[in-house]
Amino acid sequence: MINIFKVGGNVIDNPDMLVPFLRRFKNIPGRKILVHGGGKEATRLSEQLGVTTTMVEGRRVTDRETLDIVTMVYAGLVNKRIVARLQGLGCDAVGFTGVDGNMIKAVRRPAAPIDYGYVGDISPKDINTRLILSLTDEGYVPVFCAISHDGSGTLLNCNADSVAAALAKSLSTVDRVALTYCFEKSGVLADPEDDRSVIPSLTPADFVALKESGTISKGMIPKLQNAVDCVEAGVGIVRICKAEDINGQGGTIIREN
Amino acid sequence: MINIFKVGGNVIDNPDMLVPFLRRFKNIPGRKILVHGGGKEATRLSEQLGVTTTMVEGRRVTDRETLDIVTMVYAGLVNKRIVARLQGLGCDAVGFTGVDGNMIKAVRRPAAPIDYGYVGDISPKDINTRLILSLTDEGYVPVFCAISHDGSGTLLNCNADSVAAALAKSLSTVDRVALTYCFEKSGVLADPEDDRSVIPSLTPADFVALKESGTISKGMIPKLQNAVDCVEAGVGIVRICKAEDINGQGGTIIREN
Repeated sequence: MINIFKVGGNVIDNPDMLVPFLRRFKNIPGRKILVHGGGKEATRLSEQLGVTTTMVEGRRVTDRETLDIVTMVYAGLVNKRIVARLQGLGCDAVGFTGVDGNMIKAVRRPAAPIDYGYVGDISPKDINTRLILSLTDEGYVPVFCAISHDGSGTLLNCNADSVAAALAKSLSTVDRVALTYCFEKSGVLADPEDDRSVIPSLTPADFVALKESGTISKGMIPKLQNAVDCVEAGVGIVRICKAEDINGQGGTIIREN
Repeated sequence: MINIFKVGGNVIDNPDMLVPFLRRFKNIPGRKILVHGGGKEATRLSEQLGVTTTMVEGRRVTDRETLDIVTMVYAGLVNKRIVARLQGLGCDAVGFTGVDGNMIKAVRRPAAPIDYGYVGDISPKDINTRLILSLTDEGYVPVFCAISHDGSGTLLNCNADSVAAALAKSLSTVDRVALTYCFEKSGVLADPEDDRSVIPSLTPADFVALKESGTISKGMIPKLQNAVDCVEAGVGIVRICKAEDINGQGGTIIREN
């Protein structure tokens, strides 16, 4: 069994949430992988450097300057802070981008209809499971940010939810995988204003209905799309929950039917 | 045999020098490791962010803001650019800090006589050779920047020459090691203004004499100190040469006597 956790920017940006999260993550037994975002810190550094942040449908338009900023923030600051914290807790973490050991190769997104710049999409076929599994088998805990490359020398900014999904799909061809999306809410909510309105389980058909009714919107749509894709691709367990609940059973489970 | 190369900031900062250097590095056969600096880019980002850079005896005084900057630049921007370039050349590079897998642990430098802030010193005993060797044995090429940690959650800014030396000393207990310091000059120069005045070989006693006569100064002193320490600690080959000459035999060889 391989446990993959993705933790988002609202948890990472807040030391009062991040440190307890990492403590709970450390206590998860067995082979595990952490994937993290970090968008808010990147936006902050962009502001300090006078670089305009442009988001289209929740994705950061990544020109050359923005690529440098996200590489610095995700692969440098956020990744190494998390790895140092985990090491301090006795968890043998190793930080990576997709570039390292060509573990996650991406394809630059076509410039039409929207030119996102240096933004990449990942296929589960482009994951180097050999290196990942040799590390997890040795007891190391890979920690990935969502920077990858095209294989020809160019870095690409990818989406952390999609990185976690591609890892889960790819690793599920060799072992049982549980994928958990952890964020600041308690799960997929029937009423976005009410954190007690968690939908305990969802099928792909439910996802379509929720999207059409407008119950879910914005960042929840691509997150759930990734979750549904994973279930359909054979990932054993897919769950969306509060960062406080990663050792628990709460939140929303995505079921195949 | 393990080949360790350290490349400095003047080469890294100049794409016209870096790309040919990486091409030559790629062509070195067998097990190899690259250690890189990147100080000039860190100074540039500090300026852009309005953070004052203070250097004392060639070492960067690293307050909390500067620690974030060097972590972003060395572990993020520079490391991942180099790894992406090497991957593009078909060299299976994996980028690391000392934090990752606790590969290089450091000790924070005492605050007296000079308080360098978050600056660390490394002992060869604090190198996790197990992970490094398992990667090189599998054909991966580790690429290290000089960010490390104290093992308790705090990142530390280390010196890249010293990281290369600590790796060389530590790995020389398990295999033959050649350490090559590559920079923009042709070697240790008898006349710093004349790039043809390379001293072809040096002993520890010669080093003391050159230091006393003032022939060598500034950054060359700690670099040569590291080189001399390595020879005395049993590193098989230690050479200081031009980045263009890494596949060659030129430059200055440090001999035990």
